[in-house]
Amino acid sequence: MSEINLAVQTAVKQWNQQVLRAAKLLNDLSDQDLEKQVSPGKNRGKYLVGHLIAIHDLMAELLGVGARNYAELSAIYVQNPDGAILPEPTISELRIIWQDVHQRLQDVIPILTIADWFSKHEAVVADDFLKDPTRNKYSILLSRTQHLSYHMGQLRLLIN
Amino acid sequence: MSEINLAVQTAVKQWNQQVLRAAKLLNDLSDQDLEKQVSPGKNRGKYLVGHLIAIHDLMAELLGVGARNYAELSAIYVQNPDGAILPEPTISELRIIWQDVHQRLQDVIPILTIADWFSKHEAVVADDFLKDPTRNKYSILLSRTQHLSYHMGQLRLLIN
Repeated sequence: MSEINLAVQTAVKQWNQQVLRAAKLLNDLSDQDLEKQVSPGKNRGKYLVGHLIAIHDLMAELLGVGARNYAELSAIYVQNPDGAILPEPTISELRIIWQDVHQRLQDVIPILTIADWFSKHEAVVADDFLKDPTRNKYSILLSRTQHLSYHMGQLRLLIN
Repeated sequence: MSEINLAVQTAVKQWNQQVLRAAKLLNDLSDQDLEKQVSPGKNRGKYLVGHLIAIHDLMAELLGVGARNYAELSAIYVQNPDGAILPEPTISELRIIWQDVHQRLQDVIPILTIADWFSKHEAVVADDFLKDPTRNKYSILLSRTQHLSYHMGQLRLLIN
């Protein structure tokens, strides 16, 4: 296999692994667990779940797949701190949206070609991309995998 | 720039960013902060710092740079849970070792060639690598960046 195919395959594999681990972690956490703060005075598990959904919904858009489906979650779980915006979805609703957003990514990611991965992501204008070609879809995949790990480290603390 | 150079440059950039953020976070946390558990009943900040050092010390070895320098930290911070092995280094000592381990990686990573990154990492035998060529040094870089993010999400909780 060529080096560039290995690079893409490795990054996709690590993304898939983290998404699988996250699904397992959410499955192990009850709705009651997710209502708790990950540490006293910090974000609730539910907020972090909503946050990851909103970021991954936007990720589909950055990968060029089409518009995000749950833009309203950004106000609640990205642009504002925990508890600022009400009403919010129930945890049951978030679990369903989680599956929908990640299924969409799972359907789309295998279709992207090497040329797609190294083309500009959708939030950067062409001129800026010419100056900095690392602002590509591949960098979105790597940084979102990292971001997911960051918050999984926090959600993991809700397991007794 | 070729796609493979972009893939390596993007991954190295994200590793460097996370290491820089981690250094800033440790700088913002006092020794007293690091003695605290990240959440009640969970690992102390100090344990996580020791854990990251031990894993990154071994990372240098997996990247083919030579033997790790702080093998004794693995028993304390990797093979055993928090509090199991005593005595342990002081936080001041861990801060110095942190710098040493990351300086070594920073010196070495820019020297690795594309061929190096996609060669087998040092903990996999040649036969297994032939069967699964994703077990290369590049995958170590990606997975260690993720692992660092995971524990930074936890250490971040010690900031008030």
